[in-house]
Amino acid sequence: MPEKPMLSRMGASVPDRIWVQGRDLCGELLGKIGFAEMTWLELTGELPTAQQTALLEAMLLTLVEHGATPMAIATRLTYLGAPEALQGAVAAGLLGMGTTFAGTAEGAARMLYAALADAPGDADLVELAAQVVDRELDAKRQIFGIGHHLHKPIDPRTPVLFDIAKRNGYKGRYVALMQAVAAAAERRTGKSMPVNATGALGALCCELGLDWRLCRGLAVIGRAVGLVGHIAEELRTPIAREIWMRTEDAIARSVAVADAAEVGV
Amino acid sequence: MPEKPMLSRMGASVPDRIWVQGRDLCGELLGKIGFAEMTWLELTGELPTAQQTALLEAMLLTLVEHGATPMAIATRLTYLGAPEALQGAVAAGLLGMGTTFAGTAEGAARMLYAALADAPGDADLVELAAQVVDRELDAKRQIFGIGHHLHKPIDPRTPVLFDIAKRNGYKGRYVALMQAVAAAAERRTGKSMPVNATGALGALCCELGLDWRLCRGLAVIGRAVGLVGHIAEELRTPIAREIWMRTEDAIARSVAVADAAEVGV
Amino acid sequence: MPEKPMLSRMGASVPDRIWVQGRDLCGELLGKIGFAEMTWLELTGELPTAQQTALLEAMLLTLVEHGATPMAIATRLTYLGAPEALQGAVAAGLLGMGTTFAGTAEGAARMLYAALADAPGDADLVELAAQVVDRELDAKRQIFGIGHHLHKPIDPRTPVLFDIAKRNGYKGRYVALMQAVAAAAERRTGKSMPVNATGALGALCCELGLDWRLCRGLAVIGRAVGLVGHIAEELRTPIAREIWMRTEDAIARSVAVADAAEVGV
Amino acid sequence: MPEKPMLSRMGASVPDRIWVQGRDLCGELLGKIGFAEMTWLELTGELPTAQQTALLEAMLLTLVEHGATPMAIATRLTYLGAPEALQGAVAAGLLGMGTTFAGTAEGAARMLYAALADAPGDADLVELAAQVVDRELDAKRQIFGIGHHLHKPIDPRTPVLFDIAKRNGYKGRYVALMQAVAAAAERRTGKSMPVNATGALGALCCELGLDWRLCRGLAVIGRAVGLVGHIAEELRTPIAREIWMRTEDAIARSVAVADAAEVGV
Repeated sequence: MPEKPMLSRMGASVPDRIWVQGRDLCGELLGKIGFAEMTWLELTGELPTAQQTALLEAMLLTLVEHGATPMAIATRLTYLGAPEALQGAVAAGLLGMGTTFAGTAEGAARMLYAALADAPGDADLVELAAQVVDRELDAKRQIFGIGHHLHKPIDPRTPVLFDIAKRNGYKGRYVALMQAVAAAAERRTGKSMPVNATGALGALCCELGLDWRLCRGLAVIGRAVGLVGHIAEELRTPIAREIWMRTEDAIARSVAVADAAEVGV
Repeated sequence: MPEKPMLSRMGASVPDRIWVQGRDLCGELLGKIGFAEMTWLELTGELPTAQQTALLEAMLLTLVEHGATPMAIATRLTYLGAPEALQGAVAAGLLGMGTTFAGTAEGAARMLYAALADAPGDADLVELAAQVVDRELDAKRQIFGIGHHLHKPIDPRTPVLFDIAKRNGYKGRYVALMQAVAAAAERRTGKSMPVNATGALGALCCELGLDWRLCRGLAVIGRAVGLVGHIAEELRTPIAREIWMRTEDAIARSVAVADAAEVGV
Repeated sequence: MPEKPMLSRMGASVPDRIWVQGRDLCGELLGKIGFAEMTWLELTGELPTAQQTALLEAMLLTLVEHGATPMAIATRLTYLGAPEALQGAVAAGLLGMGTTFAGTAEGAARMLYAALADAPGDADLVELAAQVVDRELDAKRQIFGIGHHLHKPIDPRTPVLFDIAKRNGYKGRYVALMQAVAAAAERRTGKSMPVNATGALGALCCELGLDWRLCRGLAVIGRAVGLVGHIAEELRTPIAREIWMRTEDAIARSVAVADAAEVGV
Repeated sequence: MPEKPMLSRMGASVPDRIWVQGRDLCGELLGKIGFAEMTWLELTGELPTAQQTALLEAMLLTLVEHGATPMAIATRLTYLGAPEALQGAVAAGLLGMGTTFAGTAEGAARMLYAALADAPGDADLVELAAQVVDRELDAKRQIFGIGHHLHKPIDPRTPVLFDIAKRNGYKGRYVALMQAVAAAAERRTGKSMPVNATGALGALCCELGLDWRLCRGLAVIGRAVGLVGHIAEELRTPIAREIWMRTEDAIARSVAVADAAEVGV
């Protein structure tokens, strides 16, 4: 049976040279481009424009750090158990970047791409947004990228991201549709439902033409930095053992209270 | 029992503001600093100088991409099985960033820090390097950061990294000692043993004053970008299933050959 | 703000005793029950009957080993990179137990539970199966648990599992509905679509009354054994480096062929 | 270049049959052997005796569950973030099975194998143990497998495990040496240092002839069951979000106290 080709152009090496995406790592990239440009190169195979770099840089920064998230706690607890394997502690934290937290950006991007895939250039985005919102809410599905449990009435990251997009020529119809979706959802539900940071990131992924399935990848890259940061702090001022101890104690107290209640004490 | 304090200053949020390392994410960081500066901020709690940024940027770039590494293959195979969880595919790849590949940078940094910890400012680095090499080789231990199975007679990344370090004022005695260790190892073994990329990265971590245990963290951050890159390519031109099929076939052939040999066919 | 209770009854320890699920580990469990019984105890908080144990044991065994799967390859490649952290190599392999391979059992269980949730005890399962198949195929959705790319015309594991279920009193209407779904799908598509091993496992999860979301957990437990097995073999006869080398070579050859074709050679 | 053989005999499949370790899964294994026997088969390629099964079963049970460990907490927090990927939540927990918790069993086994590798059959184990303890403590290294922060004066699991080993004919000189090491360490330090559960497991791995590097594998298999158990409980009575909230609150309080102290309030 003839084998199928196995094509990959990510990188190659010979004794005196390393190519990354067809470019000479030592001659063309190291010291010549920044880390965000390298990220774009890896994702697309092309070097970005200055405008793409500026926007991507802001997008990557957005999700780096959010304090003691479940991911950061998981990383610290894992590092406590396996300090010989920092990579495992970072991996443990990244594994929490699923649908609950990071999946919303990709959900938003997917929705925006789908809604505009067949729409004419002059489509009425307010009308389109209303259709999307009605369809999702009628089917009792979540609309990704709007609302936030803490950041109210607006998510402070959203206007900054959209402003950076505007200055770099990337505030187009995906952003407009995302904003129209938020407005339509507010009208229908009567609740404040502004575009949140993941909704903004999803819309900007679309503006940059990135596959919606890579939105979560940007979140993972940014959060990898944050999780290494938490390990760096854990090395200076460790708290993982105390998190563990307090959790054990709190559970023991809850069990004692529940048991006492059951036996009528 | 009074609880111990649980101090962490990585980040905090209120409805209209997010602080990262005590700085206002939306007002001071987004659109104002780059991704490498954010990385430094996360690792140290401080914003870097332009020189520190330039060096860190090159260091982060170095390990992003090296083609079809075991890590990249593991990521692609995992994505094949669990496309709903990109974070798991990246995590699977990162888990291979252990002692074999990424651990050498931290081993080099640890060795350099230890060797210079109590050395006077005018210590003879050639003499010190000879002592280190003799001690390690006498104990039949590996010397981290020198030699490479492919990149001979020199690793092309090393002179570029050291040149960037020099231009930014960070080519100091850790780099000098790393080079002296390589030279001493060559004299003692008679083999070509130049400083490789991980040795260079380990020395530069020391020059920047980073904890040696964070060397692996820089490798993990860089490689996270590369692994998302491999997923991006897998979405365009998938090869994971073919890797799997060829591996299965090759094993079946090897088993058939071995079985035939045993029964004297 | 009063804190919510944090109830967990999995385990507790005092200096001379360890409780697991409210039972004395040393006095009641160690040497008294088997590993499969312990698994049931962990999943449900209760000790199983002999019949439940026999069925669970067979279910756990089913997915332990399937040769050079993507998961096993990922585990071996990760172990090559990080032999200091066996836990990471197993984790890397488990991360591939997603929707493609392991998700089908949970999909089948979810479908069966949903279909029978409101069905009367004497519901016509053939009619019900036809409705399920029509609804799923009309919506162009996959029907989980039927068909197999290799095991044709039947998956040899299915009749063995159903026979064990029958002997232990657990071949009830979930199994019957799963079989009826397969038959209905065959009728509609004209293709052979027997119940596969994951369909059988999904149906048996329902018979045992386990949450459909735990089906994947049983697969993960079984496969953890298999992946440690692959590491054991890798220690005796390593193949990870060769898998890597062949993959690199195959990619290089494919790229060379593609490049030659493009330049018209 | 002729390729090296890639031998693996873990498993193989044809349409109507699946072999595991050269045995017919459906005809010889399913419904015929238990889960612990399958584990032994995977680790060694052979079916175990009844005695080996009984001992392995107890060993696997020992580490399944220990309440709200860092691993269990990491699993629950990860499941909160990525409920679509149960495999990732289990993997996150397993990643904490490193040197701190699970590594001690393998450290103990390695020490015992090394100490008895060249010892004659009638070696004085008390003398040998004293040498081992002196060598390790003189070099300021940890002796693996003795002492426990909670289980004092003895670890209640140890006598039970050793009793099961005795009844099955596996209480040999590795167990004796482990006990002698504990006694020698107590004599030298003046502190109570009984053999703990991981020390017992390490010694029993040696008695069974398993590679010391697989000790951690047994811990990983056992703990995989426990972590799926925690997810099962989390589905019934969720606590992950509360763990997160309390950790965030505790950090915020600690930071407020520290800040107040600094400004002299």
